[in-house]
Amino acid sequence: MLVLRKPYLIFLGDAASVADAKTALGVADWCPDDVLGELAFPEAAVSTGKPAMDIAAAVAAGAGSLLIGIAPIGGRLPDHWLPTLMAAVRAGLDIVSGLHTRLADIPELAEAARAAGVQLHDVRHGHWPRVTGTGRKRRGQRVLTVGTDCALGKKYTALALTRALQARGVPASFRATGQTGIMIAGSGVAIDAVVSDFIAGVAEQLSPDNEAGHWDVIEGQGSLFHPAYAGVSLGLLHGSQPDALVLCHHAGRERLDGWPDFPTPSLAEAIDAYLRAGRLTNPAVRCVGISINSSTLDDAQWQAYRARVEAELGLPVVDPLRGGVDRLAEAIHHHKESSHDA
Amino acid sequence: MLVLRKPYLIFLGDAASVADAKTALGVADWCPDDVLGELAFPEAAVSTGKPAMDIAAAVAAGAGSLLIGIAPIGGRLPDHWLPTLMAAVRAGLDIVSGLHTRLADIPELAEAARAAGVQLHDVRHGHWPRVTGTGRKRRGQRVLTVGTDCALGKKYTALALTRALQARGVPASFRATGQTGIMIAGSGVAIDAVVSDFIAGVAEQLSPDNEAGHWDVIEGQGSLFHPAYAGVSLGLLHGSQPDALVLCHHAGRERLDGWPDFPTPSLAEAIDAYLRAGRLTNPAVRCVGISINSSTLDDAQWQAYRARVEAELGLPVVDPLRGGVDRLAEAIHHHKESSHDA
Repeated sequence: MLVLRKPYLIFLGDAASVADAKTALGVADWCPDDVLGELAFPEAAVSTGKPAMDIAAAVAAGAGSLLIGIAPIGGRLPDHWLPTLMAAVRAGLDIVSGLHTRLADIPELAEAARAAGVQLHDVRHGHWPRVTGTGRKRRGQRVLTVGTDCALGKKYTALALTRALQARGVPASFRATGQTGIMIAGSGVAIDAVVSDFIAGVAEQLSPDNEAGHWDVIEGQGSLFHPAYAGVSLGLLHGSQPDALVLCHHAGRERLDGWPDFPTPSLAEAIDAYLRAGRLTNPAVRCVGISINSSTLDDAQWQAYRARVEAELGLPVVDPLRGGVDRLAEAIHHHKESSHDA
Repeated sequence: MLVLRKPYLIFLGDAASVADAKTALGVADWCPDDVLGELAFPEAAVSTGKPAMDIAAAVAAGAGSLLIGIAPIGGRLPDHWLPTLMAAVRAGLDIVSGLHTRLADIPELAEAARAAGVQLHDVRHGHWPRVTGTGRKRRGQRVLTVGTDCALGKKYTALALTRALQARGVPASFRATGQTGIMIAGSGVAIDAVVSDFIAGVAEQLSPDNEAGHWDVIEGQGSLFHPAYAGVSLGLLHGSQPDALVLCHHAGRERLDGWPDFPTPSLAEAIDAYLRAGRLTNPAVRCVGISINSSTLDDAQWQAYRARVEAELGLPVVDPLRGGVDRLAEAIHHHKESSHDA
C-alpha cells in the first residue's frame, strides 16, 4: 500500500480550467487541513482557495510533499514544470503525481530525489504488492460503493459516507482505490494498476482486520456491467468482502459513458448482480442504499425520481450533493446493530 | 502478444520427477513437431522421449529457442544452470522461461543476449500490451473453456478441442492464456500477468477478427467462483466474447483446491453464472458441453456419472482422457450451423 507524506503544497502549474485542476480541487475540498498552500504560475486561471506559497515557505511550515494537482493535456509533464519539481526535491519534499509520465523516468529528477533522500510517488503506476487473495473473513465491517457505470460518484459517495459515519460517532476509515482518493486519504492502492492475478489479494490488504464496530468505507472502481473494467470491479468486490454495498448511479445515463453500445443496467438488475457476486466472500452482504448523481434533474424531477426508486426498491436513495448521505449512514448504523443482534 | 521462435530444444536440467518436468512433458506432448530434442544433466530422472541433443546440434538442426521445461523448487534459477543458458544465448538461441526468476534480471545473461541479438522470454512476466477493452463484436467464432475451479483441465480441454475441430475440417486456433499454453502455441498472453485495467482489452487482442467459419479455442483461467482469481476469469470472459462455453470440472472435488473454505459450485450453478456474465459482451453465448477430469472415478462410476449429468443438464459430457472431446467438437460444429441458420 502506498503511504504519502502530508501535509501538501499543491502545485497548480498553469492550470487553465477547473477541469484541468480536478485533482487539486478534490484534495483541497476533502482534506483541507492537509493542504498548506498552493503554488501556481502567473498564467494559472484556477485556485484552490488556499494561500499562495513558495517552496521555501511550505518547507518552513512543515510540508511533506509537493502534490501535482493538475492534469496537463495528454497526461505528460511539460518541460517548463521541471525546474519547480527539481527545486521541491532539493528542498526535501516528496513529489506526488498522478500523471502518465513517470517522474521516476526523468533521470535528473530521479537522481536529485536519490541525493535528497525523498520519494517520487507515481500514484498511477506504483509497485503494488503481489499477494494472492485468501478469502479469509476479516474482523471489522466494510461498505463498498459499486456502480452501474464508471465516473458517477463512487469516490465522492464513499468520502461523504465516511464523514457522515464519523459525525455519528461510528469509527470509519475511507479506503482509497484510485489516484485522487489516495491523495486525499494519504494512502491506498490504485487497484486498476495491480497485476490481475493479485487484485483480490491487494484489496484484502487494503481493508485489514479491524475492531468489531469499525467500518471501512471502500472506494469502488469500474462496474460489473462494463466490458473493459468488470474484472477490476469483481476482484475488488471479492477482496473487500463487504458487509454492505451502496449502489451508485447517474440518473438519466442510459448508455455507458464512452461505450455507447452498452446500456446501463436497471438498478434492480445491478443490485442483484453485485449481491450474487459479493456472496462468494461474504454470504451476509446486503445493499443498504442508493447514491444518485442527479445533476440532470431539476428539484421536482429529483423528488419524484427519489420517491419512485425508494418505493420500487425499498431502500434509501440519496444524492450526496442534494441533502447528503446521512440516510446511508443511518442504514449502515442500523445494519451494524441488526448484525450484532443476529 | 508474445510470439516465440520455434522449434525448441527443451532443457530438462536435473529434473527429478514428472511433476518437476510438467511443462516439458506438456510441450513435447502437444507440439511434438516443434521439439527437436532435449538437453538434460546426467542426474535427470525424467525424459520427454525426444532425442538427447546438445546446443550445437540443435542450432545446426535449426532450433529457435532453448525452452526451460522444468520448475525448480521455489521457482528460482539454480546457479549451475547458468552456463548452459549462457552457451545457448551465445549460440544464437532465444530462451523461453516460465520461472519466477526473470532471466532479464541476470546481468551477464541479459548482456550476452543483447550481444547475440537474441530474446529472453520471461513468459510469466512479460511486457503485455496496455489496451482498454472496447466490447466491439469481432468476426469469427470463439469457444472458451471455463471452470468450477483452477487446475482441472481447461488448457487440456482447449487443446484437445482444437485438434478435434481441425480433424473435422473446421478451421480452429488454440489461443493460449497461460505459460505452458503459450509455449505450446508459440504465442499468447499470460492473462493473469496483465495489469487489471487491461485484462479485457488484452483478451480482445488475443482472438482478433477472423473468418466467419473459424473458431478460436481460448484457454480459460481461474474460476468465477474463486476468491482470488475471479477478476481474471471475468475479464477474460468479457474480452473473449465467446459464442460457446465448455464448462470444466474435476469430478469429486467439493472444495476449491487450496481454498478449503470455498465449495465448488454445482455444474448448473456454474453454467448459469458464466452465461449471465458472458451475455454482457455476447448475448448469444451458449454452453455447449462439459469436460470432466474423472481421474477419481473407475469406469463404472464414470459411466454412471456421465449418464446422470447428461440427463440432468441436457449437454454432452466428456473426459478428454476417456474417449476424447469429439462430442464437444460436434456440438460446436452444430452450434455454428444453427447460428448460420439464425
